[in-house]
Amino acid sequence: MIRVTVWNEGVHETTQPEIAAIYPDGIHGAIAEGLTELLGDAVIVRTATLADPEHGLDEQTLAETDVLLWWGHIAHDRVDDAVVARVQERVLGGMGIIVLHSGHFSKIFKTLMGTTCSLAWRNDGKRELVWTVDPSHPIARGVDQPLTIEAQEMYGEFFDVPTPDELIFISRFEGGELFRSGLTYKRGKGKVFYFSPGDQEYPVYYNAGVRRVLANAVEWIAPRDGVGAAPSVVHAE
Amino acid sequence: MIRVTVWNEGVHETTQPEIAAIYPDGIHGAIAEGLTELLGDAVIVRTATLADPEHGLDEQTLAETDVLLWWGHIAHDRVDDAVVARVQERVLGGMGIIVLHSGHFSKIFKTLMGTTCSLAWRNDGKRELVWTVDPSHPIARGVDQPLTIEAQEMYGEFFDVPTPDELIFISRFEGGELFRSGLTYKRGKGKVFYFSPGDQEYPVYYNAGVRRVLANAVEWIAPRDGVGAAPSVVHAE
Amino acid sequence: MIRVTVWNEGVHETTQPEIAAIYPDGIHGAIAEGLTELLGDAVIVRTATLADPEHGLDEQTLAETDVLLWWGHIAHDRVDDAVVARVQERVLGGMGIIVLHSGHFSKIFKTLMGTTCSLAWRNDGKRELVWTVDPSHPIARGVDQPLTIEAQEMYGEFFDVPTPDELIFISRFEGGELFRSGLTYKRGKGKVFYFSPGDQEYPVYYNAGVRRVLANAVEWIAPRDGVGAAPSVVHAE
Amino acid sequence: MIRVTVWNEGVHETTQPEIAAIYPDGIHGAIAEGLTELLGDAVIVRTATLADPEHGLDEQTLAETDVLLWWGHIAHDRVDDAVVARVQERVLGGMGIIVLHSGHFSKIFKTLMGTTCSLAWRNDGKRELVWTVDPSHPIARGVDQPLTIEAQEMYGEFFDVPTPDELIFISRFEGGELFRSGLTYKRGKGKVFYFSPGDQEYPVYYNAGVRRVLANAVEWIAPRDGVGAAPSVVHAE
Repeated sequence: MIRVTVWNEGVHETTQPEIAAIYPDGIHGAIAEGLTELLGDAVIVRTATLADPEHGLDEQTLAETDVLLWWGHIAHDRVDDAVVARVQERVLGGMGIIVLHSGHFSKIFKTLMGTTCSLAWRNDGKRELVWTVDPSHPIARGVDQPLTIEAQEMYGEFFDVPTPDELIFISRFEGGELFRSGLTYKRGKGKVFYFSPGDQEYPVYYNAGVRRVLANAVEWIAPRDGVGAAPSVVHAE
Repeated sequence: MIRVTVWNEGVHETTQPEIAAIYPDGIHGAIAEGLTELLGDAVIVRTATLADPEHGLDEQTLAETDVLLWWGHIAHDRVDDAVVARVQERVLGGMGIIVLHSGHFSKIFKTLMGTTCSLAWRNDGKRELVWTVDPSHPIARGVDQPLTIEAQEMYGEFFDVPTPDELIFISRFEGGELFRSGLTYKRGKGKVFYFSPGDQEYPVYYNAGVRRVLANAVEWIAPRDGVGAAPSVVHAE
Repeated sequence: MIRVTVWNEGVHETTQPEIAAIYPDGIHGAIAEGLTELLGDAVIVRTATLADPEHGLDEQTLAETDVLLWWGHIAHDRVDDAVVARVQERVLGGMGIIVLHSGHFSKIFKTLMGTTCSLAWRNDGKRELVWTVDPSHPIARGVDQPLTIEAQEMYGEFFDVPTPDELIFISRFEGGELFRSGLTYKRGKGKVFYFSPGDQEYPVYYNAGVRRVLANAVEWIAPRDGVGAAPSVVHAE
Repeated sequence: MIRVTVWNEGVHETTQPEIAAIYPDGIHGAIAEGLTELLGDAVIVRTATLADPEHGLDEQTLAETDVLLWWGHIAHDRVDDAVVARVQERVLGGMGIIVLHSGHFSKIFKTLMGTTCSLAWRNDGKRELVWTVDPSHPIARGVDQPLTIEAQEMYGEFFDVPTPDELIFISRFEGGELFRSGLTYKRGKGKVFYFSPGDQEYPVYYNAGVRRVLANAVEWIAPRDGVGAAPSVVHAE
């Protein structure tokens, strides 16, 4: 049983009716639904948002989380630094974290990467093709080559992140750009997966292929031996 | 001409006579001397310490620095966060940074890595052998296989850092441990080199092989096209 | 159910009584025993040797093999090139291969690496300590830090192999050397794990820690979706 | 002074007038011209083709070569295995090798990679955009973001090569595909750069950006300390 928490800032859906129309249960709701649909009893999924006390990421919730998904966009700076530090410590102790789309600019992602995490972008709603370049990776299992997303915001290079441990997906946009869209990193005892498809203006989290990637990622990133303390100094005798 | 700044917290040398006896010109002085000795007119070397205004890392100094070396140990928490942010931004814009020994726990290194950077250690003053595992790397040029350091503090695994882009050196300690002691990373437009040999209690920065490594690293890490702004978001039309 | 084939050239054991005394069932027998002991019904293990028809690696056997372990030493050049090509093709199609100790000089390993795979060595029977540098890797699960092998041949750097995808273990030898002793690579749809401990003159394959590593490796390297054809050219319409 | 040898099978140009019209001095001639134009006195460039005795890659020529460029397409199997072995040994000893376009299926590239090196392709003569994803790499210096090639054969994923040490360029094709088009690898003491743009039917090797990449690559890949023997076994006393 993998214990999953889907975190979403949840601001667009509560302030913009046109976004709420696309995601009536919130982006977190759509993601949670996809995971439950594909993984069934193998997961227990809860959600949390910015507006919850401690953003819904209190000690107790994190202590019961094996995999955290993170979606944020316009309210990154409203996330409490203490919560970010708590999440980072938990990742270093073994919790998996999946950072989505505009989450590239979240405090937690920038903290884990050490870089600006900037990129090029243009919201033109054109087609994105997600190509697999590591076909035997568990996250790519059962994913179409390419995975097609009919309408999407463009994200382009240069994406200012460290060299990934594994590059699984690269996306190609109709307007001319491309983007390293599926990346993994180890940090401490935990793992990070960044996946760029997904925007509040497009129904990307209902796409079957995207849901497959996220379900695969949850299974791959869950710690096999539970989450413990972050690595610490050992005074060897 | 490579413009180098050697930064040292400089606390041991000013408070402990037995350390001052080993490093009468400070650890920074010994490092600067080694670089000048080996690189001559190819570099211009200045030094800076914690006690200097803005720790000697004001905007002007950083604007004139291509490569920064960093040594710290007991005063990491006294380094101003604003200075750390300034150094990080400069690294992401292209400045090379070489982090030494106990600098693994410096704010700037932890910020660039995203992990705890913890390790195992024991100060027993025994022999360290530094083995080259990437012999064609420019930083290993002219370095003995192995490089011998007669007396040294032990650093051991697990060293909690991200997978390095390149692993150049691994050290083996008489007491039984080993340690990944020479690592490179890209961050933004800049590069990071971590090199573990070097301690305030041992005359490691006078060792000819260690001086060779640091001189090679300065040449390798210097930006070829100068330092600019850190990568930023591009709104592609 | 993972179908495992343990391949061993089997020359030492049949020509040198002192080796046969250490490995009465052959090195392959000792390895097979360890896998069965630890993995039980999760695996079905068979063995094959150089003296078998087609070295025991006929089309049929390989078609029924998910993971192949390879031990060879003094008879590398007696392995038929056609068998090597057949094994390579199968690895590229998804079969896992675990190459052991002196297998670094086998035709199949050199073919998969593209380098000389040479190293330094000295048979002095002293202690090897195997340190884990990637503690959350499944292959390191439950392995002592360090894993101690009381008597062993020394293997040292420079080990002429490509930069590994993952570096899991580094060994440190009493005589002064160290060696990257646990490495993974992706090749085609398959994976390669090289693990250096193990010599015909020492009872290394009875060591509980070594057996744990090999069992973990078999589970990690087995293809999740079976073995298919090696990747081939696609003429995209 | 970097000693460069540009090798081209040279079959298209001598048997197909329409190709000879594009490359009247051969593909090797166009590449050599570009290197001389951009690097001037820093290089001495010679050429060699399949039809030359020993394919122009006799011991003497290789002994005087620091960097070898390789272009082949329809005559890979006519390259003598002894020449391939000689080139491999030289690369492992430190010579840089730059493999171009359809050279992905050359014996020397497959030998150095250990995989099938297969890919997807379609010759539709549409636009290729080459995006830089490692902007501080010396090979990307002065290269447009993106580099545009107006008409080109499409190469697509999955490209069956090992995980590169560095991924510098990714190409995006008008027809929908993308391709990891600029990759580096270390092999022994030498380095490998694969660069996919370039086809006999299109005047790609006259493109200023492509010429810049190749000139940068020659400078980056040249061994700093000359070429020696490939790594060999060391019997440590």
